Amino acid sequence: MLTPQSAESLATTLSALTPAYDSLLALAPYQTGKPVEELIFEYGISDVVKLASNENPLGCSPQVTLAVTEQLGQLARYPDGNGYYLKQALAEFNKIDAACITLGNGSNDLLDILARSFVSANDAIVYSQYAFVVYSMLAKMQGATGVEVPAKRFGHDLEAMSQAVHNQPNTKVVFIANPNNPTGTQLKQEEIQRFIANIPSSVLVVLDEAYIEYSPDSNNRALLDEFDNVVIVRTFSKAYGLAGLRVGYALSSVPVAKLINRIRQPFNVSRVGLAAAQAALADQDFIEYSRESNQEQKRWLEKQFDALGLGFVPSAGNFIMVEIAVEMEAVSATSVNQALLEQGVIVRPLAVYGLSNWLRITVGTAEDNLRLIDTLHSILTSQ
Amino acid sequence: MLTPQSAESLATTLSALTPAYDSLLALAPYQTGKPVEELIFEYGISDVVKLASNENPLGCSPQVTLAVTEQLGQLARYPDGNGYYLKQALAEFNKIDAACITLGNGSNDLLDILARSFVSANDAIVYSQYAFVVYSMLAKMQGATGVEVPAKRFGHDLEAMSQAVHNQPNTKVVFIANPNNPTGTQLKQEEIQRFIANIPSSVLVVLDEAYIEYSPDSNNRALLDEFDNVVIVRTFSKAYGLAGLRVGYALSSVPVAKLINRIRQPFNVSRVGLAAAQAALADQDFIEYSRESNQEQKRWLEKQFDALGLGFVPSAGNFIMVEIAVEMEAVSATSVNQALLEQGVIVRPLAVYGLSNWLRITVGTAEDNLRLIDTLHSILTSQ
Repeated sequence: MLTPQSAESLATTLSALTPAYDSLLALAPYQTGKPVEELIFEYGISDVVKLASNENPLGCSPQVTLAVTEQLGQLARYPDGNGYYLKQALAEFNKIDAACITLGNGSNDLLDILARSFVSANDAIVYSQYAFVVYSMLAKMQGATGVEVPAKRFGHDLEAMSQAVHNQPNTKVVFIANPNNPTGTQLKQEEIQRFIANIPSSVLVVLDEAYIEYSPDSNNRALLDEFDNVVIVRTFSKAYGLAGLRVGYALSSVPVAKLINRIRQPFNVSRVGLAAAQAALADQDFIEYSRESNQEQKRWLEKQFDALGLGFVPSAGNFIMVEIAVEMEAVSATSVNQALLEQGVIVRPLAVYGLSNWLRITVGTAEDNLRLIDTLHSILTSQ
Repeated sequence: MLTPQSAESLATTLSALTPAYDSLLALAPYQTGKPVEELIFEYGISDVVKLASNENPLGCSPQVTLAVTEQLGQLARYPDGNGYYLKQALAEFNKIDAACITLGNGSNDLLDILARSFVSANDAIVYSQYAFVVYSMLAKMQGATGVEVPAKRFGHDLEAMSQAVHNQPNTKVVFIANPNNPTGTQLKQEEIQRFIANIPSSVLVVLDEAYIEYSPDSNNRALLDEFDNVVIVRTFSKAYGLAGLRVGYALSSVPVAKLINRIRQPFNVSRVGLAAAQAALADQDFIEYSRESNQEQKRWLEKQFDALGLGFVPSAGNFIMVEIAVEMEAVSATSVNQALLEQGVIVRPLAVYGLSNWLRITVGTAEDNLRLIDTLHSILTSQ
């Protein structure tokens, strides 16, 4: 058996093999939401509510179950590497040529492929403070400079980002999350349009619209007609309720799509994922229902946070960032998070974003949210 | 709508953005086996036999169907990013510490992650002529030198490969496919052991064992105890019958696993994939049955090829490479492939490997194979 001890001797060799080895190892891995199974195991709690990963608490369209079941006899067969049928459906849905679409193993795969295709060592990636943590990780992986631009009221400061691009002539990619995760802020289309018009057309602007279904106003599809250097990245992991199956897509100009389709792995989306995404896309009633339910429950949660005296950032997504203010005696985001965990409620602490007084809470079902608020109330009043 | 015309103007910009743009575009994408749906669409044939992608013609274990069905209510939930349960099962199965395991979105994902982790521009990757075409594509993607070492009797010439490593001091990775796809050749463990002992320990040797279940003698798990610079890559896409779900894994020393686990995407394996792979691994009776059936059918096919006067390379996998000799009048691998397609039989032409007189044929079920041989017979005798 290979022991960690005997193997550690390789570490020196690896540093020589991969110059970035040490810095990559120093890179904190992406912190996923705590899986329900883990909490059950750690605390022996069976009745767990997970509000940590912005999943759709309503699940997914019943049409998806049908589509997945139809694939059960075909699991041994490779998926269609070109995702022909899903691309056709996405082309129609987005009013775009199928040649402009690239499929991904979740939208993370597409962010990864974009960085890998366009960013080399010594290049720069520009993104906002408090934007999705994966952007800075991608810069590190490519050995590139990650330029984090200070946020303005928890959102993107596009003027400062434009300045940053001009200050860094080697900028290859700008990531803009809209709505932004974890803060929930969103930008107006005019602001984004002005931003793109003001930076060199050789800089790729990646609009990460993971939460777009919860905020249709944020849809920047129209910008693709105006700018060739725009890429829109979407996912089936949030409102579509397919986080477990890993499907995302990118809309771009044809040359960008041609390139990133060569960099992606030939079978990056599974057979089950392709079929499920196609069924999910076809059921827009489910999306409408999810959006309305989210809106209603978000308003309810906001009222409860107000009543509990907790500050929050108004959110365009299916989550709310709540402040556990330091002036509360003997209470911190860490202690509240821990107390919630012990009572079977998983939310997301944000220390990795430098937001150590904040917790990001996914908007759940009415039942989930009641449980959250009851638990929060008992934690905050028992101090 | 974004038109290809308006978008082409970006191509020049892209060349500036990505110095490798033109060479990457010139890179032929991986040719997947023709999907059954495509043949139905193109030729209007409904009764199609696909022997083109080395899938398990027996499907997968019935336990898998059960495991996938159990996940249907959880599709909206992210997978366990650490794949805890599958890794535990793989650790026990392979008698290795779970810290030595990395999961992948198929084994292609792991080959990709390994290249990305260890190979930079100006480095070299060494592999054999007629070995899996993805190795040379990875070299191109990393901007590295791909050193293709001429094959010996269609298999790896390890002495020449060792020489190539010594001639290229910047070699970072050697890929060895065992059994090899598409030729079916295999190496003895002593040969591989001698090869590794003779090259610098700073060169990573990746043993691609995609077809290992069909040839248990090729299992080189033992080499991991002896060498820290060995990585074994396996897949659930072949004998396990899960090509549609995308699951593979790598066994390595702990430092290598630590690094590549940081480079892989946090949710690279789907929830359904994790559950299916665990169920598939637990049903070794199905693997035994698949192996025996493959062995029996392979022998039968060999006899038929002999009877048809077709040469072939003895194969350790679930496929046979068959020669359509040029001396046959008016017959070529291309014309036979085309005639097979028109009669609903999909096999794999090998021109991309420089084996333009050869076809790779997956060993199917008795029924599939009978259909193949009957069709081949009628094609060859009708000329």
